[in-house]
Amino acid sequence: MVPSLDAEIIAIGTELLIGGRSDSNSIFLADELGKLGIAVRFKSVVGDHRQDIVSAIHTAVKRAQVIIMTGGLGPTVDDCTREAVAQATGRRLGRRKGALEGLTTRLAQWGRVPNSAQLRQALIPSGATVLKNPVGSAAGFSLIWKKASIISLPGVPREMEEMMRQEVMPLLRAATASTGQPPRLPIVRQVFHTFGLAEADVDASLKGLIPKGAPVDLGLLASPMGVLVSLTTKGSQSVSKKHHDLLQQLANDVRARLSNWLFAEGRDQMEEVVGRELARQGLMVAIAESCTGGLIGHRLTQVAGSSAYLDRGAVCYSNRAKTEMLGVPADLIVKHGAVSQEVAASMAKGIRERAKVSVGLSVTGIAGPGGGTESKPVGLVFIGLDGGDGQPIAQEFRFHGDRTVIKQRSSQAALNLLRRWLLDRATR
Amino acid sequence: MVPSLDAEIIAIGTELLIGGRSDSNSIFLADELGKLGIAVRFKSVVGDHRQDIVSAIHTAVKRAQVIIMTGGLGPTVDDCTREAVAQATGRRLGRRKGALEGLTTRLAQWGRVPNSAQLRQALIPSGATVLKNPVGSAAGFSLIWKKASIISLPGVPREMEEMMRQEVMPLLRAATASTGQPPRLPIVRQVFHTFGLAEADVDASLKGLIPKGAPVDLGLLASPMGVLVSLTTKGSQSVSKKHHDLLQQLANDVRARLSNWLFAEGRDQMEEVVGRELARQGLMVAIAESCTGGLIGHRLTQVAGSSAYLDRGAVCYSNRAKTEMLGVPADLIVKHGAVSQEVAASMAKGIRERAKVSVGLSVTGIAGPGGGTESKPVGLVFIGLDGGDGQPIAQEFRFHGDRTVIKQRSSQAALNLLRRWLLDRATR
Repeated sequence: MVPSLDAEIIAIGTELLIGGRSDSNSIFLADELGKLGIAVRFKSVVGDHRQDIVSAIHTAVKRAQVIIMTGGLGPTVDDCTREAVAQATGRRLGRRKGALEGLTTRLAQWGRVPNSAQLRQALIPSGATVLKNPVGSAAGFSLIWKKASIISLPGVPREMEEMMRQEVMPLLRAATASTGQPPRLPIVRQVFHTFGLAEADVDASLKGLIPKGAPVDLGLLASPMGVLVSLTTKGSQSVSKKHHDLLQQLANDVRARLSNWLFAEGRDQMEEVVGRELARQGLMVAIAESCTGGLIGHRLTQVAGSSAYLDRGAVCYSNRAKTEMLGVPADLIVKHGAVSQEVAASMAKGIRERAKVSVGLSVTGIAGPGGGTESKPVGLVFIGLDGGDGQPIAQEFRFHGDRTVIKQRSSQAALNLLRRWLLDRATR
Repeated sequence: MVPSLDAEIIAIGTELLIGGRSDSNSIFLADELGKLGIAVRFKSVVGDHRQDIVSAIHTAVKRAQVIIMTGGLGPTVDDCTREAVAQATGRRLGRRKGALEGLTTRLAQWGRVPNSAQLRQALIPSGATVLKNPVGSAAGFSLIWKKASIISLPGVPREMEEMMRQEVMPLLRAATASTGQPPRLPIVRQVFHTFGLAEADVDASLKGLIPKGAPVDLGLLASPMGVLVSLTTKGSQSVSKKHHDLLQQLANDVRARLSNWLFAEGRDQMEEVVGRELARQGLMVAIAESCTGGLIGHRLTQVAGSSAYLDRGAVCYSNRAKTEMLGVPADLIVKHGAVSQEVAASMAKGIRERAKVSVGLSVTGIAGPGGGTESKPVGLVFIGLDGGDGQPIAQEFRFHGDRTVIKQRSSQAALNLLRRWLLDRATR
């Protein structure tokens, strides 16, 4: 049996701790380490204070064998990861040739020479291996202390990711090979994205899915974009080929149980799924947005190559804009209100006809916090779709949450309606 | 001298640990605790595993006196915070009247009765105080163990925030008062948002700002939206009124040194600053977006009440759309290309005239990864503005980064150009 190998991530930076900036590096690190069968079990976030980083290292070595530190390697005064690691492990800091060369070469490319602050970036704890940074100026390093690998990388995602791939993964692979033990099976994680069901209902649908004692964890997470379901093989110990087959079985079971609500798997997002299907069917779409204010256009254009299927969008925030840009009759707005099934349908038809495309998608609603009435409360949203083959569809939704959440849910519901229409169309 | 009082946040949830979902609760918790002079020094993230939560609690009590746990109080099988706290502190779990009443009342409002899974939410460790949840079904709790206050709250931001305000803050205030010591001075944090300077240049501009030994921390954080600068008084010990005056002095110094690049302070965002100024001057804006795809419209409409100053937006992803929606001459696009100063200017003029508003703002550029050429590389962006009083302005930018980053920077640069134009106009 292969002994347990757990990882801890230590993210360094006061802004990560109290400034509300999120550390987006964890998912990448968990994926990479998972390939080697190493499970991330803890993550610690500490501010830019040497003593606190020292404390985090001392805690981590007690419960993890691989410790990945991110951040605090820059040239500014509050960057003190180098000093903290040296202090925690009783090593000396010295300027190292490998780190200095990387630094001067990088700065030379930018037409600069290192100043005294930047030269601090070449300081490395004694006995540590220098990890080259192919993107930025700060080298990382790796050392073994109390049987744990302590690896220090920059916090900038692009630098961290390249260094992880080019420097850290080969190092960890070699370390595993040198033990003479068989390599660990990778940790496999499968993710399913659903929209339209509450978390409690997804939970109920999946009741009894995982057989007792099966080495697979089931996770659920609700957000305005829907409920995410994950299946993860347990890391480190006693994972065998059989368990990976079990995972495939369970994944198929999830697909069967949630089929009506499942819109994507893995890292796929709604806008990618919709974009791919539009491209596959050779269709162009145009969008008319009121309460979402451009969010649907923004999301569709997050996907590279979206100009192949998105012709235009109209953000019609005023009633006059709805009439002038889309030809929505002014008296229709007077009669039913801008937030109505009739106006949503007219907006979808109007943008499709004006853009001369295959399908028009529209949203009109009350995002709040103001503007709601008893009959038309905040969260009331109508989504229209016109495929040019008869009457436009217009669906009513009632969303809960603040302005941001209502905009997000509205954009997701609109793209989901388009997705279902596209799938329907393909099977007709 | 008031003894040190530090806080640790323990965020519970496998998705937070390895799923790339960010925990947005820290900034709120740091702000609230800061009001009582309590500094957040550590944050730990653990998956939904009882033993790991126990380990996190045992680590936290050694270095913090206030421990706020978020998450793991739901009804699903992976919610095990209750069990972990009971195990870590050697308490028994029992169903508590206060928690049960809240649960049944809440579910009754939703037309449900608690099932056996939901009844688990009424389990509370012995000796703990029940914290009522005015929004959701899960009660929280608070207990003292090894001289530390261990407080367990739901992870859902809206529930956590209400419970923090209504239940936890009064509890912490009372605990401080009962010691007979003078109340701590609050931790004060001032945040400044800059755009247009690299992090290294902001750092250089602020060199020597903080006098040696002054109890104020300076923080910098770069993002596509600009570089954030923060000044924070050190928490807990030896903070006096004098130091708060010093903070005001330093804040004024930051404003003076960065005035050209400073666009907002505190939680203000660019779209709020721009919106306020448009409203103050009584102007309406219309936007023509190409490479940003609707992001500027989305950002402006994140602000409640934005319909007072945003009339419409045109997302012109195709050349035909630029001509049809904005009247950009087709031969201008042929001659200069869709990504050019001339087209940006024509787009701004076109949207202003068609919408009959005071000011038109436009963006055209190459967001990549494809579509770049040697003379027009990925990241080349033109921003146009037409105020109707002469020639439209059109500025060239060259941004680095991936598609998302280029879109973000472009939207920020466009709103910043509008902001500067508005400020200029006000002083004319």
